[in-house]
Amino acid sequence: MIRVGIVGATGYTALELILILLRHPDARITRLTSRTPESQPVTAVHPSLRNRLELDITTYDADDFARNVDCAFCCLPHAASSPIVRELAERRVRVVDFSADYRLNSLKDFTAIYQADHADPGRLGKVPYGLPELFRPQIETADVIANPGCFPTSAILPLAPLVREGLIQTSDIIVDSKTGVSGAGRTPKQAFHFPECNESVAAYGVGTHRHGPEISQIVGRWSGHQIDCVFVPHLIPMTRGILSTIYVHPAGKNHSDSIAKFLTGFYQNSPFVRCSEHLPQTADVSGTNFCDMTVRKVGNRVAIVSVIDNLIKGASGAAVQNMNVAFGLSETVALR
Amino acid sequence: MIRVGIVGATGYTALELILILLRHPDARITRLTSRTPESQPVTAVHPSLRNRLELDITTYDADDFARNVDCAFCCLPHAASSPIVRELAERRVRVVDFSADYRLNSLKDFTAIYQADHADPGRLGKVPYGLPELFRPQIETADVIANPGCFPTSAILPLAPLVREGLIQTSDIIVDSKTGVSGAGRTPKQAFHFPECNESVAAYGVGTHRHGPEISQIVGRWSGHQIDCVFVPHLIPMTRGILSTIYVHPAGKNHSDSIAKFLTGFYQNSPFVRCSEHLPQTADVSGTNFCDMTVRKVGNRVAIVSVIDNLIKGASGAAVQNMNVAFGLSETVALR
Amino acid sequence: MIRVGIVGATGYTALELILILLRHPDARITRLTSRTPESQPVTAVHPSLRNRLELDITTYDADDFARNVDCAFCCLPHAASSPIVRELAERRVRVVDFSADYRLNSLKDFTAIYQADHADPGRLGKVPYGLPELFRPQIETADVIANPGCFPTSAILPLAPLVREGLIQTSDIIVDSKTGVSGAGRTPKQAFHFPECNESVAAYGVGTHRHGPEISQIVGRWSGHQIDCVFVPHLIPMTRGILSTIYVHPAGKNHSDSIAKFLTGFYQNSPFVRCSEHLPQTADVSGTNFCDMTVRKVGNRVAIVSVIDNLIKGASGAAVQNMNVAFGLSETVALR
Amino acid sequence: MIRVGIVGATGYTALELILILLRHPDARITRLTSRTPESQPVTAVHPSLRNRLELDITTYDADDFARNVDCAFCCLPHAASSPIVRELAERRVRVVDFSADYRLNSLKDFTAIYQADHADPGRLGKVPYGLPELFRPQIETADVIANPGCFPTSAILPLAPLVREGLIQTSDIIVDSKTGVSGAGRTPKQAFHFPECNESVAAYGVGTHRHGPEISQIVGRWSGHQIDCVFVPHLIPMTRGILSTIYVHPAGKNHSDSIAKFLTGFYQNSPFVRCSEHLPQTADVSGTNFCDMTVRKVGNRVAIVSVIDNLIKGASGAAVQNMNVAFGLSETVALR
Repeated sequence: MIRVGIVGATGYTALELILILLRHPDARITRLTSRTPESQPVTAVHPSLRNRLELDITTYDADDFARNVDCAFCCLPHAASSPIVRELAERRVRVVDFSADYRLNSLKDFTAIYQADHADPGRLGKVPYGLPELFRPQIETADVIANPGCFPTSAILPLAPLVREGLIQTSDIIVDSKTGVSGAGRTPKQAFHFPECNESVAAYGVGTHRHGPEISQIVGRWSGHQIDCVFVPHLIPMTRGILSTIYVHPAGKNHSDSIAKFLTGFYQNSPFVRCSEHLPQTADVSGTNFCDMTVRKVGNRVAIVSVIDNLIKGASGAAVQNMNVAFGLSETVALR
Repeated sequence: MIRVGIVGATGYTALELILILLRHPDARITRLTSRTPESQPVTAVHPSLRNRLELDITTYDADDFARNVDCAFCCLPHAASSPIVRELAERRVRVVDFSADYRLNSLKDFTAIYQADHADPGRLGKVPYGLPELFRPQIETADVIANPGCFPTSAILPLAPLVREGLIQTSDIIVDSKTGVSGAGRTPKQAFHFPECNESVAAYGVGTHRHGPEISQIVGRWSGHQIDCVFVPHLIPMTRGILSTIYVHPAGKNHSDSIAKFLTGFYQNSPFVRCSEHLPQTADVSGTNFCDMTVRKVGNRVAIVSVIDNLIKGASGAAVQNMNVAFGLSETVALR
Repeated sequence: MIRVGIVGATGYTALELILILLRHPDARITRLTSRTPESQPVTAVHPSLRNRLELDITTYDADDFARNVDCAFCCLPHAASSPIVRELAERRVRVVDFSADYRLNSLKDFTAIYQADHADPGRLGKVPYGLPELFRPQIETADVIANPGCFPTSAILPLAPLVREGLIQTSDIIVDSKTGVSGAGRTPKQAFHFPECNESVAAYGVGTHRHGPEISQIVGRWSGHQIDCVFVPHLIPMTRGILSTIYVHPAGKNHSDSIAKFLTGFYQNSPFVRCSEHLPQTADVSGTNFCDMTVRKVGNRVAIVSVIDNLIKGASGAAVQNMNVAFGLSETVALR
Repeated sequence: MIRVGIVGATGYTALELILILLRHPDARITRLTSRTPESQPVTAVHPSLRNRLELDITTYDADDFARNVDCAFCCLPHAASSPIVRELAERRVRVVDFSADYRLNSLKDFTAIYQADHADPGRLGKVPYGLPELFRPQIETADVIANPGCFPTSAILPLAPLVREGLIQTSDIIVDSKTGVSGAGRTPKQAFHFPECNESVAAYGVGTHRHGPEISQIVGRWSGHQIDCVFVPHLIPMTRGILSTIYVHPAGKNHSDSIAKFLTGFYQNSPFVRCSEHLPQTADVSGTNFCDMTVRKVGNRVAIVSVIDNLIKGASGAAVQNMNVAFGLSETVALR
């Protein structure tokens, strides 16, 4: 039985993680923590957990975790995460980190993009990116796993194999993503106030969103080829789901059919990637750990449409999938 | 006083048109028609019009229109429209046609794209495209005006001037559009059943949507330059609004700032186009005849984000704007 | 030309008010104020107003209002409003007050319900309740008008005439209301964060909401009969609209038909109340100043269903209607 | 291993049922049928099931079911269901029937309310109502179980125990319910077309909805006391969830506290009913088989607010709960 602790247990990804873990036959939640000084029942924060989880949200303590937790999920904002991850790793607690702190390999990139200090720079470059579809061997033995960003998951899964195989050009890739509002987290802000984002669509972070470099770097890391990628996210009036429309140029004589065929084959043994001719919508994967994708010819371009549930395959489902792989369990436990 | 008749008065664009016309000091609705054989009060179909419009929806009759209507708005599907438009035009009733029947200049294109017969091929190529911002002189004297498609409006307004001025490359333009569900019309269909499209985003018509060729052809017609344009629309869980994210390559030494500056200047006297540094969302223009746009650098590309209300600037507002221009009124009457 | 000033111009009701006033031929906005110390263009706060209103939001100054404003709309929270209203009224500026400060007649009630001090207790009981359908003569000559609460408008309009006429029992009236989220105002809060209220319905203020006593008191004030009324509001995942389902016991031999007939007759000359057999939904009145209502038999009870747009008939539309009445204009100017 | 067949497998409740059954360790889906003449893969109808269920939807055949199905779930409309249920029961297949055909005990009531013939009148009165919280002994041994209506579930669970215990008056009970649109099923209709019901609230079936008599009859059947109950449902712009606000008069000296205390105790061993002081919203139970309820004083009345997920506790979750009970399994299998 894996003893699980969640650092930062008050947000949406933590709730989703708890719901998945409650179904997990080989894991048991032993610790929930938050920065609130007073302990409180988890049901005070997440009323949907009544009768399902009797546990207090307490203050985080590294030594306590060392004694009572085998696998920690760290659901903290970037920069707040690395100090915790470092001390947990030093105490031999394995960590799945939801933040961006370990996704990029270089301190220079982290500092430039996140404009923050990093408490654990020595570990950068040694932490696998938590997409088991691409980095399974490294995840199996990792002490720390960098859980992927939600948008990058939807883009890297189709792009990385195509780039490595040389089926598409590496230049001028456009990723136009649409996300539900839960991706913005649980803290109220003007832009996510119901009457502001209901009945409206907005682009944001145009040309500046931090997931752009993450997509480029991870595709490059896995495929060995640098790519040139434009990323624009959009906020959609729904709670969960991401759809990415990815515009690529086929390389050489390739076309949409050969690209589709290759992707289908590549992911044929990946239980959570469904590549088919069906044009997916986010509802198809809502509440699941699947990434659905399809390939279409559009003029001289090829468009790949991919969808995930941002809170599951884009966050907490992927995290449990990573735990499963790291602890030698079947990848799909609690996720099918 | 312009006497107005609406052919096809039961849909969303007709309702929106009525609401605008009720505020118009120089127009009066005299005829509403539908294909339903029995006459019925307009409020039976549009309950929101009670106490606002006392008129029956009756059967269409061309001669009756000739006697009682100066300006007809034809809100019919493609192919169903051209026979009506033809006989109205022959009777010297001026027509604003909401369908796609007169938007393309060649019968060959129409037949290829819409796979339907055309009842009035002789008029093709002589009907102005109803964007007064671009085709004002032709609209002023037209007997028939082809009211623009909703997606094309959001794409042509930014693209056409840039292409003519040579500020952007004509190849590899990508238009990624997001629309509310009212664009699909009022007839119930599986894809637009509330539980099917709520809490979900879907791409559709990928590489095949008929508004793609419309964008290319009108930009080409106005600018004199053929463009290569990829168009992918997406269905968003909201009622009204279109946001288009348009990815272009700057030409020569141009960049986002020079492009923004040019557009701002170009539209400075167009009352319904607002080009600014503000990143617009569809709520900014909801219920109005505005098209808002902004320009952003994204990597090596430039992205233009434009928004309209699909039922107003994308349909009924544009139609009244066209009527105003065609009848010598101020362009903004009933629309500000 | 009525010179209008808006105190508290950054919220949703102020935006709606501005949009209505921009269509008003006899009013001109001369002052917009907020508590923000720095002046800023109104379009910085309300981007939808670009090209429509060139005015800064400035700091409020009573003497400046006295010189430049004939009619002030005070869009402030309760308790914050009365000091401003008082000094404006003393300077002979007529005021339509959106807060609850002057809706109840007694200081004791105000203090008990709102648990706040009142800066202008001497005026309590002398300020008409701003429903022209019921209090027109008082509004015509008022210097200060208490604009009604949104829920109360939807309940008082059907209830007051029925109670005065003795058609329904005064005991055990139940008002079950459903509201869109814009009623909560523009300040972000947890409960109105998009992912919290989307795809969910919640009751709130059960047995404690302040609009309960307002309904009872105004019905009593107008009808001369005390009523016993239970009020429970519910938060619905939409931006605007209120639907109230009102359960009453018919008095004597009355039944749903006689009640419906009486209401229809009573409101026959009220341009904004539409009583009919049509079962209304909030979309029927969205964007309008109408209150639609219908009457239905349900078992031994009669249910009245009424709908309004909470931001228009429930706030800013009613306010302009009040201004029109107070300044001797036609009640419907800018509102049809 | 229970072999399961689903008759009418194309709708929302069938999909939800499949998703639950895929998690059920003791059940296996062997048959899916619909009225479509051609067989088709279930994923053609429910794309979200790709990689999760490899089964065709075929034509229903009673004898085939008799050989291959232990428990049939009949997801058909009323009147269409009873002929199937009858022949399955005759072949000793146990049936959970989603329709209303067996919920009422008398043919006369069925005919009056549903205005349809009944193919199996002899069984009426012998079929338990499928709320295990109230009718567990009868369900344990039943060959046919009448799965409850969604609205009735939300109302009967709080009302029945209170009526039997004499804590509330049996007269003048008001049930004001709010439901998401999935309750209307998957067939497109005008009222459920996205732009018709989005951003709007509507009452419907006022005084005539068929779930009113179901509530009264089942409460009466279980408690032994006839009640007088008014029921009004409302359509809310969300996909799933029901919230019922139930207005009752306490009996004798009872009040909200004693009522709350009794309900809490009554349901203390029911794993799916959570009675607490927390004011529930539908999001608290979304995706679960819980019914949450709370009790509040409102004036002279007591209001009970209850919430369920209409597709789970209001349909498919309850159905699996019934199967679990009928087949001697733990009530909560696959549902926690």
